[in-house]
Amino acid sequence: MAPKVPHFVTDFFVYETAKSVVVKSWSVGVINRFVQLLIILYFICWVFLHEKGHQQRDTGIESAVITKVKGLGSFNNHVMDVADYVVPSQGSSSFSIITNMVITDNQMQGRCPETDKKFNCTTDDDCNKNNSSNIGNGILTGTCLINNVTNVTNVTNSTNSTNSTNSTNSTKSTGWCEIEGWCPAEDDSLSGTPMKEVENFTIFIKNSIRFPLFDVSRGNFPSSINQSYIQNCNFDPVHAPFCPIFKVGDILKKLNQSLDNITAYGGEIGININWKCNLDYDVENCNPKYFFTHLDSAFKHSKASKGYNFRFAKYYQSEDGTEYRTLHKAYAIRFEIIVSGNAGKFNVVPFLITLVAAFTSVGLATVFCDIILLNFHKGADEYKAKKFEEVSGIVQEAKGPCKGSQMSIKVLGKTSNDSGTFSIGRQE
Amino acid sequence: MAPKVPHFVTDFFVYETAKSVVVKSWSVGVINRFVQLLIILYFICWVFLHEKGHQQRDTGIESAVITKVKGLGSFNNHVMDVADYVVPSQGSSSFSIITNMVITDNQMQGRCPETDKKFNCTTDDDCNKNNSSNIGNGILTGTCLINNVTNVTNVTNSTNSTNSTNSTNSTKSTGWCEIEGWCPAEDDSLSGTPMKEVENFTIFIKNSIRFPLFDVSRGNFPSSINQSYIQNCNFDPVHAPFCPIFKVGDILKKLNQSLDNITAYGGEIGININWKCNLDYDVENCNPKYFFTHLDSAFKHSKASKGYNFRFAKYYQSEDGTEYRTLHKAYAIRFEIIVSGNAGKFNVVPFLITLVAAFTSVGLATVFCDIILLNFHKGADEYKAKKFEEVSGIVQEAKGPCKGSQMSIKVLGKTSNDSGTFSIGRQE
Amino acid sequence: MAPKVPHFVTDFFVYETAKSVVVKSWSVGVINRFVQLLIILYFICWVFLHEKGHQQRDTGIESAVITKVKGLGSFNNHVMDVADYVVPSQGSSSFSIITNMVITDNQMQGRCPETDKKFNCTTDDDCNKNNSSNIGNGILTGTCLINNVTNVTNVTNSTNSTNSTNSTNSTKSTGWCEIEGWCPAEDDSLSGTPMKEVENFTIFIKNSIRFPLFDVSRGNFPSSINQSYIQNCNFDPVHAPFCPIFKVGDILKKLNQSLDNITAYGGEIGININWKCNLDYDVENCNPKYFFTHLDSAFKHSKASKGYNFRFAKYYQSEDGTEYRTLHKAYAIRFEIIVSGNAGKFNVVPFLITLVAAFTSVGLATVFCDIILLNFHKGADEYKAKKFEEVSGIVQEAKGPCKGSQMSIKVLGKTSNDSGTFSIGRQE
Repeated sequence: MAPKVPHFVTDFFVYETAKSVVVKSWSVGVINRFVQLLIILYFICWVFLHEKGHQQRDTGIESAVITKVKGLGSFNNHVMDVADYVVPSQGSSSFSIITNMVITDNQMQGRCPETDKKFNCTTDDDCNKNNSSNIGNGILTGTCLINNVTNVTNVTNSTNSTNSTNSTNSTKSTGWCEIEGWCPAEDDSLSGTPMKEVENFTIFIKNSIRFPLFDVSRGNFPSSINQSYIQNCNFDPVHAPFCPIFKVGDILKKLNQSLDNITAYGGEIGININWKCNLDYDVENCNPKYFFTHLDSAFKHSKASKGYNFRFAKYYQSEDGTEYRTLHKAYAIRFEIIVSGNAGKFNVVPFLITLVAAFTSVGLATVFCDIILLNFHKGADEYKAKKFEEVSGIVQEAKGPCKGSQMSIKVLGKTSNDSGTFSIGRQE
Repeated sequence: MAPKVPHFVTDFFVYETAKSVVVKSWSVGVINRFVQLLIILYFICWVFLHEKGHQQRDTGIESAVITKVKGLGSFNNHVMDVADYVVPSQGSSSFSIITNMVITDNQMQGRCPETDKKFNCTTDDDCNKNNSSNIGNGILTGTCLINNVTNVTNVTNSTNSTNSTNSTNSTKSTGWCEIEGWCPAEDDSLSGTPMKEVENFTIFIKNSIRFPLFDVSRGNFPSSINQSYIQNCNFDPVHAPFCPIFKVGDILKKLNQSLDNITAYGGEIGININWKCNLDYDVENCNPKYFFTHLDSAFKHSKASKGYNFRFAKYYQSEDGTEYRTLHKAYAIRFEIIVSGNAGKFNVVPFLITLVAAFTSVGLATVFCDIILLNFHKGADEYKAKKFEEVSGIVQEAKGPCKGSQMSIKVLGKTSNDSGTFSIGRQE
Repeated sequence: MAPKVPHFVTDFFVYETAKSVVVKSWSVGVINRFVQLLIILYFICWVFLHEKGHQQRDTGIESAVITKVKGLGSFNNHVMDVADYVVPSQGSSSFSIITNMVITDNQMQGRCPETDKKFNCTTDDDCNKNNSSNIGNGILTGTCLINNVTNVTNVTNSTNSTNSTNSTNSTKSTGWCEIEGWCPAEDDSLSGTPMKEVENFTIFIKNSIRFPLFDVSRGNFPSSINQSYIQNCNFDPVHAPFCPIFKVGDILKKLNQSLDNITAYGGEIGININWKCNLDYDVENCNPKYFFTHLDSAFKHSKASKGYNFRFAKYYQSEDGTEYRTLHKAYAIRFEIIVSGNAGKFNVVPFLITLVAAFTSVGLATVFCDIILLNFHKGADEYKAKKFEEVSGIVQEAKGPCKGSQMSIKVLGKTSNDSGTFSIGRQE
């Protein structure tokens, strides 16, 4: 054709395509198109519309949360405000509202009897075992303080603090092991009335997120909301979905959590903020959804470790320089704000990949139809003869003009019936 | 051929390959190779070089951050050091530098007038509504303290603290609602000069990360850096990219943040540490990049909730055992250190998968060329006759040697023109 | 066939399948089946069994951690309990156990000499440079306090606190720069005996996780565990893998960390909790694994910034209202609990996708066998003649009954030998 062009060039610019057999059969044709339609529908409805296969997805959401609790309660004849009951105070994503406390006033370094029943003793020997455990309020001295011991000796100096609790303990018949440490020892069995006003407290959540891949930043309430709306609204999934103020009582109600129980023994509550954004639409539609969970729901059948409490101390110094402290065992509702989410946006690369996958999958209808055609259709042998052309291991004779096709048809009519992995019944 | 071997064995060890039609046409051949070249280039440049399709990827980065702030400022005639202005003190990844404070000294439990304008009153009735809100500094008693009320009665005992602020308030014509709680109530309208020395403070960030999949640990500064360099350097993206010391003023400048505004009302700043590591190279090249962001940028058009502040209290006890406190409303710059990143390393499995995908995709050039060849090329009918061989629904007559191919050529010349989904124009 | 149906309908319901060449050759047949077997085995063993390709995977694990430390130590003749040495106190996932402290008592705002060698001076000029750095304990006044300076003037009033340390300093021949700030300045060179009892402390970890995709919640210890078991057990990877109590000494031993070093200078330890759950089995089998890591292992060769310490202060107020504080430079072991993991569950969609991928990949055996057959097999030319049928650019003559196949066989026997990208040697 172009004699100057060398052979390897003409051989290279050659186009190779598969030779096809077209079967004009209503039954197989309809099945073929129907299977193809199913595959196309699957790709359109599931892969593109539901799974958003044409979008690039950013799952590395970056989040910052600031919280602010408001409300006034009363505990132990004291009015408690935010600085008293929120720990830590800086408004982080994880915070606790103290609702109940065991307060041990005026503790000083010294020696005093234990308070727990485990440390009951009759002789000093009872107080010498059990030293390795970490249960007690102080280091056991090995002495058993029996019965009428009313004078407690402090290593440093104690003035007015330790006697009050001891006088009640020392009237019992058995004694208590002596400890060295902060005295008087904490007796955590008694407890005041919990701060039930927590029900009316409100939590303001300011959550700003960023999808770094698309450089899109969003806040959990729209900029159209003004200060006065925020001061008066309460979050409601239907009527006020954009209000960032959450009433503690509403959250407890949604979780079927009894107020009495959680205020007395503490608990853990998760506030999930879920962002699922389709950035193909206006970014203003990218808004969070809120869910509330019991963080300790996995332990609900467990007998151990109910509620939530922790110990902290306030330290004081008397005029003569002696340090003393007030120990608080605080039962609290712990809130954890858990932010999750992802965003998708149209991108040429995943779109093309999914499109190619869709086209390739349409070809799978052929696999299905081949099984029917070659095994269950009445003209199966005829199709096989057409679809398969046989070459034996070493074919010597192929000279006559029509010999090749002649032979192959003849032989195939007898032996060739391979259809890969998909041939089910084999007829000879 | 091998008569001892049963038929189903010979039938099984058979090789089936697609029969191809080779088209010797310059135009289609060149288009075919050009499309194939494009697909190969796409895989080499985008999938392998850019997207690193041959690498296994670890996105579950584990990170630990320790921070240390240094610097001295002055506020309210006091020199402030780290223990005074950093909250929390332990150097976690999220911390605040207090720059401005409203300090209410010597608060005790008792009764006193409110300070906010919302609680102005003329009769007791004004103080009985509005009880449910969480706005005030204490629990409303329902009494309106009018005009010349100078004697404030405390439930416990108050000595010298409450009168100072009241004397200025009580000269007004209207009164204030009485509250029970920590007295005197906080008046958050007045404020001192912010601690502007924060500009010269430095933040030391020690970030160690781990990619668990590859068990690779890295730190944000190389081990060659010694103590004296760290004490003298300042992070600069160009000149000192490995210095882990960040000057607050530099960060504010990069964010175009006015020092006056942020020190007066507080703010939130994100320090993003991004690790993107190619572990096919030396692990020493795995180093982080730093970015700075306004965490509240999503709220910049919002009218509500500007700045950042929180309340905390220091508790004291007088000699007679009465508790009193100093309430601080602290305006602070909050820093959040956000660590993100991923690492990739050559792995046989993803390499093979991507390679197979590349080879399969090269075959897609055929789809494109088939459309051209069967619809727009001048010899289209001829190609169709070659490419497609027809079998009717039930073919009874197939006895003559050349009958099969004779018929199919004849029939195809007239009717067969199916090219799957890709046949655009149909000619008959 | 059905004359009433229009042509485009019959043309549409047509079935098109690839025409195949079946090669009856033992060698190629065995190779073909063997390669197919390898691919199938790869998919079954690696993709399905190991990589769980039939499962939907949830990597967005949500986690909440509560910790509680128990144990008693002694430092500086004081018994230390949880409220003393755990910071922060609320039991979060990141906490520090203070093991060593430099305590500077009774600091007040005032003027006093520096303590660090860097601030040695002989004239006032020595104290005027170096102002910009953030190293010192206070703001330099520019005065050099030489030798016998025993009277320290405080801006406010200081009673008994500052003289003790100054009296030892002032006996040296050179002087020290004067600073304004909290006085006396901290001298962080001296240190007491660290609290080595930390070895026997125990950490209770309560970790609840949730896989939001499957709505499965799990805790890190089974509900069958009761309170008395928890109080007596110690985690051991073999004998007590479900015990949530970790002894600090055990962790240090596993990390080969010397107790002396970490208690003196502090350190950072990571407790990794890894959840990898196959939810196709009973959810009771979904249990965590624990690993311990040195968080600063990336810095182990670094000369800078060893250990871990932070500063905090306790604030007091004297009767006359003067504020004073005790500054603590605390060396601590910092624990970070890092939770990671993912869960998989059977899902129809990924199962189908992987199945289709497997079937498609089996077809890749053809590519491999074609290369052998068309290049290295002895009947290669014959196979080529069968596999490839040629159509020239413009074929004018195709009238005779057998002309088409006649020509193509003839031509192919001479020139056609394209096998795509896979033809290695080319023979003519």
